[in-house]
Amino acid sequence: MLHTHSRSHSNRAGSLEGIRVIDLTRVISGPFCTQILGDHGADVIKVEPPGKGDIVRSQGNMINGFSWYFAQFNRNKRSLTLDLRSEEGKAILHKLLESADVLVENFRPGVMAKMGLDDETLRERYPRLVVGRINGFGSDGPYRDRPAYDFIAQAMSGFMGVNGDAAGEPMRAAPPLSDMVASQNLAFGICAALVRRERSGQGDIVETALTNGLISMMGYLAAEYFATGQVPQRTGNDHPMLYPYGLFKASDGEVAIAPSNDIMVERFLGALDMLHLLDDERFADNRQRMDNREALREILTTVTERRSVQEWIEHLNRAGVPCGRVFTLRETFDDPQVQAQQMQLELDQGEYGKVPTTGFPVKMSEAPAAIHRCVPRLGEHTREILAQLGIGEGEENALRERGII
Amino acid sequence: MLHTHSRSHSNRAGSLEGIRVIDLTRVISGPFCTQILGDHGADVIKVEPPGKGDIVRSQGNMINGFSWYFAQFNRNKRSLTLDLRSEEGKAILHKLLESADVLVENFRPGVMAKMGLDDETLRERYPRLVVGRINGFGSDGPYRDRPAYDFIAQAMSGFMGVNGDAAGEPMRAAPPLSDMVASQNLAFGICAALVRRERSGQGDIVETALTNGLISMMGYLAAEYFATGQVPQRTGNDHPMLYPYGLFKASDGEVAIAPSNDIMVERFLGALDMLHLLDDERFADNRQRMDNREALREILTTVTERRSVQEWIEHLNRAGVPCGRVFTLRETFDDPQVQAQQMQLELDQGEYGKVPTTGFPVKMSEAPAAIHRCVPRLGEHTREILAQLGIGEGEENALRERGII
Repeated sequence: MLHTHSRSHSNRAGSLEGIRVIDLTRVISGPFCTQILGDHGADVIKVEPPGKGDIVRSQGNMINGFSWYFAQFNRNKRSLTLDLRSEEGKAILHKLLESADVLVENFRPGVMAKMGLDDETLRERYPRLVVGRINGFGSDGPYRDRPAYDFIAQAMSGFMGVNGDAAGEPMRAAPPLSDMVASQNLAFGICAALVRRERSGQGDIVETALTNGLISMMGYLAAEYFATGQVPQRTGNDHPMLYPYGLFKASDGEVAIAPSNDIMVERFLGALDMLHLLDDERFADNRQRMDNREALREILTTVTERRSVQEWIEHLNRAGVPCGRVFTLRETFDDPQVQAQQMQLELDQGEYGKVPTTGFPVKMSEAPAAIHRCVPRLGEHTREILAQLGIGEGEENALRERGII
Repeated sequence: MLHTHSRSHSNRAGSLEGIRVIDLTRVISGPFCTQILGDHGADVIKVEPPGKGDIVRSQGNMINGFSWYFAQFNRNKRSLTLDLRSEEGKAILHKLLESADVLVENFRPGVMAKMGLDDETLRERYPRLVVGRINGFGSDGPYRDRPAYDFIAQAMSGFMGVNGDAAGEPMRAAPPLSDMVASQNLAFGICAALVRRERSGQGDIVETALTNGLISMMGYLAAEYFATGQVPQRTGNDHPMLYPYGLFKASDGEVAIAPSNDIMVERFLGALDMLHLLDDERFADNRQRMDNREALREILTTVTERRSVQEWIEHLNRAGVPCGRVFTLRETFDDPQVQAQQMQLELDQGEYGKVPTTGFPVKMSEAPAAIHRCVPRLGEHTREILAQLGIGEGEENALRERGII
């Protein structure tokens, strides 16, 4: 069961209804952030260069000339084409900013200033505006001007160094994790600044960076390094501090089992009829079990491989032991829980057909996220937005002829 | 250079100054969320069971009896002990909620209702309250009552299935990614609900789940699956759609290089003096290069292994090619850019000494995040908070004797 949404279904206002966002971002970081704002009701105006627009419009798998990769990051937006290198384009942007609550950009540091949109100017002309920005390394410091990319942020944040098999090389995360995290951070920061603005009337400049976001995710691995001075080692699917934990062989595949404390370890061993192992001094407590991990793994495997993954999942869940199957993406999206949580939605893209996309991870009871708009064609809303700015059709045609829009 | 912060340094108000958060969460997801709110100025009251408090207080590396793991998730909070299973404890919680803006909990679905704090009651008694909650699978659907843990969410979200080496097994991310992402999602959702409340006067119930958060991070991998019907394969450090990209052998280690489009590939090959490769039909465009990845890798390696990592990083950055070293956590925190961005801070924990911790990934110009408070001792603020509720010392002592606080 897919949940199809079209414009007519957006009958309840989202939390950010009435917030207007001018979105100068492209590619992933930035567009993911503004999509989150749009999902929750903000009016997001995606400003794209005339001609080709956001480069992602022509990337990834194209179906009927429509990029499903682009769709994944650009629902709930209106599209306006505008040449921001031209004076007329900049003048239109300033008109837009007069009625805007938020401006988001992911240019390299310095580009906005070159466009005449330095922080001082923005603060002076638009004191209520919240400016959000994402870059690679932050806008201060020795690397501020370096080109950035997710893979580099994964490498320099320390994430890759701890990720992957002990015997293998440092391993990146498959999704562009630093882009996604920095986008989420920025969506949070923009809303926090809006909370303050509602109370003080003052805007702010909010910045996140690919590298900084991932560093802040290192959590207890960072704490462990700070406390011991020892760099955490890669441990693959084994937990660095807990055993039993990880993937266990079943008769027809592997099952993920994660008893996170002594009570759950007891439940797990009880469910395996192996409680007597706790009387063995090699396995009596977590420290002993970590020291004798391979011996215990061997013993447990002789039991787990007797039943199927499905049998273990049912049996262990009944016993209150966290466990699950390692899903392929197909199994994830086909899963009844994932469907009950509406984590796959469908965009009605008209001539391009129905396009599936991931759902909303933030559920609101009164003001839920929704598909308010499907993915816009390049410049689909140029006329409508210019009209709102008082620019008539004659002027619009002239702008179009000169390649400004 | 470390940036030491103590209370006296918090001279500018954060964005969420004046927002009071009652925090019933424990372990990682939840505490990470409320720490983010506290970093940005919210008054977070961490409600802990009398006796031992949050279980993480005694986990991870303890120095002078103080858990640095706990410190990583619990700065900028006040601690109040309260037995929420007792009627008197619940009555005090209700008093707290009268002056609160936000309530956050990460119990399993149903536990709040058992405590008399079902959604209906909360909505009726505290119509302006924003309730935030994190759980494993969401509070609806067939798995709502299953025990959850980060490793299981990584497995069931599809993340592990795409992560890791092609030849190896599905690979979890080393940090507890689903906990961290769901916490960030919730911090965003709570602020979005606060923006609405400032305008409408109405609270909301905001929910995030470990599995849902990671699913929403699958980005173009999900799009690729939707578009092709093919499950994306694990590709290790190779990008599934781009080459050259990845780790390249230098004379003294590996360097991460990520040219993300044709222009950057030209810059990269130009910097290697290998531009002629683009005239070779095997490598003329990205599709050809993907088909002949191993051949190209071999050729490029003969060049990259002639110079050191540091030489390549300087040379390629000058050429505008995204690149970097795969840092250990020590190298990350010692890096001049990371220090310039203040991504390592120091908590002044008095008798427990100075405790390093990760910095703020969301930078605000006018209302910056700060260490407003160091990590509280268990119950450190019980007296102060009860006094604010009009509970005098006599009553307090009686509550303490009965184990309520």
